[in-house]
Amino acid sequence: MHRLSEREWQAYRQKNKDRARMLISCPDRAGIVAAVSSFLFEQGANIVQSDQYTTDPETGRFFMRIEFDVVNLEERYEAIKDAFRPVAESFGMDWSLVEAKKRKKMAIFVSKEDHCLLELLWLWKSGALHADIEIVVSNHPDMRETVESFGIPYRHIPVTKERKAEAEEEQLAALGGGVDVIVLARYMQILSPRFLQEYPMRIINIHHSFLPAFVGAKPYEQAYRRGVKLIGATAHYVTEELDAGPIIEQDVQRVTHEEDVEALKQLGRQVERTVLARAVGWHLEDRVLVYGNKTIVFP
Amino acid sequence: MHRLSEREWQAYRQKNKDRARMLISCPDRAGIVAAVSSFLFEQGANIVQSDQYTTDPETGRFFMRIEFDVVNLEERYEAIKDAFRPVAESFGMDWSLVEAKKRKKMAIFVSKEDHCLLELLWLWKSGALHADIEIVVSNHPDMRETVESFGIPYRHIPVTKERKAEAEEEQLAALGGGVDVIVLARYMQILSPRFLQEYPMRIINIHHSFLPAFVGAKPYEQAYRRGVKLIGATAHYVTEELDAGPIIEQDVQRVTHEEDVEALKQLGRQVERTVLARAVGWHLEDRVLVYGNKTIVFP
Amino acid sequence: MHRLSEREWQAYRQKNKDRARMLISCPDRAGIVAAVSSFLFEQGANIVQSDQYTTDPETGRFFMRIEFDVVNLEERYEAIKDAFRPVAESFGMDWSLVEAKKRKKMAIFVSKEDHCLLELLWLWKSGALHADIEIVVSNHPDMRETVESFGIPYRHIPVTKERKAEAEEEQLAALGGGVDVIVLARYMQILSPRFLQEYPMRIINIHHSFLPAFVGAKPYEQAYRRGVKLIGATAHYVTEELDAGPIIEQDVQRVTHEEDVEALKQLGRQVERTVLARAVGWHLEDRVLVYGNKTIVFP
Amino acid sequence: MHRLSEREWQAYRQKNKDRARMLISCPDRAGIVAAVSSFLFEQGANIVQSDQYTTDPETGRFFMRIEFDVVNLEERYEAIKDAFRPVAESFGMDWSLVEAKKRKKMAIFVSKEDHCLLELLWLWKSGALHADIEIVVSNHPDMRETVESFGIPYRHIPVTKERKAEAEEEQLAALGGGVDVIVLARYMQILSPRFLQEYPMRIINIHHSFLPAFVGAKPYEQAYRRGVKLIGATAHYVTEELDAGPIIEQDVQRVTHEEDVEALKQLGRQVERTVLARAVGWHLEDRVLVYGNKTIVFP
Repeated sequence: MHRLSEREWQAYRQKNKDRARMLISCPDRAGIVAAVSSFLFEQGANIVQSDQYTTDPETGRFFMRIEFDVVNLEERYEAIKDAFRPVAESFGMDWSLVEAKKRKKMAIFVSKEDHCLLELLWLWKSGALHADIEIVVSNHPDMRETVESFGIPYRHIPVTKERKAEAEEEQLAALGGGVDVIVLARYMQILSPRFLQEYPMRIINIHHSFLPAFVGAKPYEQAYRRGVKLIGATAHYVTEELDAGPIIEQDVQRVTHEEDVEALKQLGRQVERTVLARAVGWHLEDRVLVYGNKTIVFP
Repeated sequence: MHRLSEREWQAYRQKNKDRARMLISCPDRAGIVAAVSSFLFEQGANIVQSDQYTTDPETGRFFMRIEFDVVNLEERYEAIKDAFRPVAESFGMDWSLVEAKKRKKMAIFVSKEDHCLLELLWLWKSGALHADIEIVVSNHPDMRETVESFGIPYRHIPVTKERKAEAEEEQLAALGGGVDVIVLARYMQILSPRFLQEYPMRIINIHHSFLPAFVGAKPYEQAYRRGVKLIGATAHYVTEELDAGPIIEQDVQRVTHEEDVEALKQLGRQVERTVLARAVGWHLEDRVLVYGNKTIVFP
Repeated sequence: MHRLSEREWQAYRQKNKDRARMLISCPDRAGIVAAVSSFLFEQGANIVQSDQYTTDPETGRFFMRIEFDVVNLEERYEAIKDAFRPVAESFGMDWSLVEAKKRKKMAIFVSKEDHCLLELLWLWKSGALHADIEIVVSNHPDMRETVESFGIPYRHIPVTKERKAEAEEEQLAALGGGVDVIVLARYMQILSPRFLQEYPMRIINIHHSFLPAFVGAKPYEQAYRRGVKLIGATAHYVTEELDAGPIIEQDVQRVTHEEDVEALKQLGRQVERTVLARAVGWHLEDRVLVYGNKTIVFP
Repeated sequence: MHRLSEREWQAYRQKNKDRARMLISCPDRAGIVAAVSSFLFEQGANIVQSDQYTTDPETGRFFMRIEFDVVNLEERYEAIKDAFRPVAESFGMDWSLVEAKKRKKMAIFVSKEDHCLLELLWLWKSGALHADIEIVVSNHPDMRETVESFGIPYRHIPVTKERKAEAEEEQLAALGGGVDVIVLARYMQILSPRFLQEYPMRIINIHHSFLPAFVGAKPYEQAYRRGVKLIGATAHYVTEELDAGPIIEQDVQRVTHEEDVEALKQLGRQVERTVLARAVGWHLEDRVLVYGNKTIVFP
């Protein structure tokens, strides 16, 4: 097993050397696009992709994601930011400027089920996930061998009711402050508000979803008894309200009466890993903006 | 506008003249298939299609749907039923024998939204829905012209809180006891237990469905605020527990942040009409068996 | 049966009274978005939706579709066009400016199969197709009653090998020069180059599609013998090369060994009507740009 | 990395200890199901799943797949086969009886692209692929490390035009006669008729598929230039006619003008690995019957 080869990684960096992404959110009014695109033109930038959305052209909020190339991006990065600041202020923008070649630092939290973890590791190994996986944290020891075979550090931190706060401190210490995004790949512990506020809109969770929703324990058993014809999964940012944060991606899989509870779970795992991988990929490429409790996704 | 032409209808009858469907449900044990298929062989029947399902081969319940051709079905129909009775009794079967050429009598209930009604009327007119639509009943007068242009009687029966029981009596009288299935095509009144017990597992409803479920009023507005990525619809048999009867069919449609509430509703209507039409079609061809609160569908 | 009611049509016009769409295609280079958006800002326009695409930011071709609102659009329409002309010239743009409230004039050509025609008529009647259907032209008399029941003129023009050129002259005369788009809704005659050049990239056709492709006669029979698991449909602009014009939309439907040839055709009709309706809807809302032999679709 | 644990494998064997699958194909006529099911009843078998299909109840061919449990299957396996032989002969059946617990022996052929190989290895490692992977054969050395890390032998056999026959002899020798199924996981060499006749309907291939089909070199480049909206993949049994053997499974993925050739290839790889995995899984569970040049799949 090997990481993305140095050669492949160099090729990616080279291709994206001068590629930047600008993310903007502000009250909508006339002139925003003109101001931003004129600014980029003056900077000598070539717009490669541009997406925008407004909740309402008169009174709504405006969102924009622009990918552009500009010569010598790395050297000019701070200067471009400085030059844009007055434009941003005049429109009251929340904004950021990202260098595409800089890979985000990712941590994965996992419990005992490995399907979501493995999907992420395989995608990462094949070069399809533009992140550096810094660490895998688990409340169980089971996945150590698998994770370490990918050359990724594994940290087993047991979590019990009594030592939950203590365990979270250990987790935060293990992350070391340098992590950009945490993926809960079937991590079955609820994170405390204290933990969440360290990583606002930077923790992604996956959970099963059914039509209709089944609350309480054993959802697959409930779904089986009701004879649902679809099972699904939802990837979302984690907020204090359990499983109710902004949705990034959802998908479903058709089932019939023939699937027993075990088969439903198996299919559910397939949907979960696909949906989580898509959501994480979009997050890593800065394609997800959050507004209130919903997302704007520019895939 | 015209009904299915007499010639087309004759062709269908001729093709299905000797086609029967047998539906069976009983405790599973060894020998059921042998007994049924030996019986049909002795009757000179040619099995055309056969589907079966067991919840558990040792202690479960067994379901079977067989389509077969037998010469002179109409003349021999009662004799075949008589001959099968001892077989059925020895296995404790719930069963029925249906002549495929006999179209079921259908009533449609509708309120103000016409998309589900129109889908059914168009499919019926094109010959794809094997039913006789006896009547359309509505608590509003709006659809009269449309329905009557298809040559179908329209009955406007206002429903108010005060005269609900009275209105239901009028509805039952309008159906006249000869209706096999009632389709609630966006009929926005709740039917009473008294009404439901007249048509057990013979009333099909359609309703919108979301991941997660949104309870209470204005579900599309709730779905919009949460930024769902899928909207769906569920067709089910109506039971006393509101919207919780056995599910016949479900489907979803992808949406993005770009769809406003109006667009979500528009797409929701598309899913609703498709899902309802599939469910009704399967019911009319005796492809749906009910067990507890779930369906076995042999599509 | 009735057309979209005058009230509904007024509401649509009112909502889109000041809504314009600008379509642009030109060699890509820096500054295009800045120039266009600055122009619109100066005109007092509010951008509602904006999509763009470039085949290559350095040497490629750039495509843009902008929806915007501007007060008193109708009165200012010509003035805005005049003012934009210098901008367009400096970038070598192909461009157009469309008033959203102006419905395109549509003709439908049909032969004997009615499923695509009916889908368009039903969508149009429900207000979902923003066009005026001026005429239905057919080489057969069969659909007259149906079409006229929608209040649409029907013109039967027989086509035989001998009088094909003559028939096409009659068709062109029947269209009268005022038609914006022609939809071939299972029209089984090949249009001559002479006809096509009157309506370049304004004739939309639908045809079945299989994996793999089956050439020659009776494609459904061929597909059945090969046991395909998917059947599909492709909607495309008509060019002189038969069935090889720019693709607007495609979709497929899963099938199994159980579907006989007749069932495959039935399912094929479902896919065809859905795909054609989507393609026509996008064309009517100016969402399709053509470049070489491919389309850019901003749905 | 580890194989399916001994414990998991034992559990699977235990669960399927007495599970058999009977596959039947014969001219259709009345009485087949009665004869088979009566036979199984006399043997004390419990039918768990049963699927059947007839191309025509009067003159067609009949196909059946039955899963059943029978006590002490392993001991009684030969006796059951002997007892069934007269039944089979009286109906002219092609038939087989398979013990579910016996895993098929599989070989994988691969060239330089690893996505299909890896999907199979991962599924196998997770226990979802009921086969023993005996060997991976490649005309390139590249995958050795990856394959051997799964504990599977890797055999590099170079293939050139000059030594093709010789190479195939080496391949056949490497398989050693004990392999039940060969999966071509993007193996880019054409197998000779001589090779194919050793494994009739036991070699599964995957190839890309487009609507329309693009013949000749660089299909993704052709698809890009034509602006297709769907890209797909087809898994099929290999016959002497290139890429024209019986289709087992197909699927597609939606694309837009935004995907460049590289992105189309990336998405194509996703579809290919999914479709191939489904086809292989069905083959391993004896769910695919072949008739002429098409398959009957009981999924």
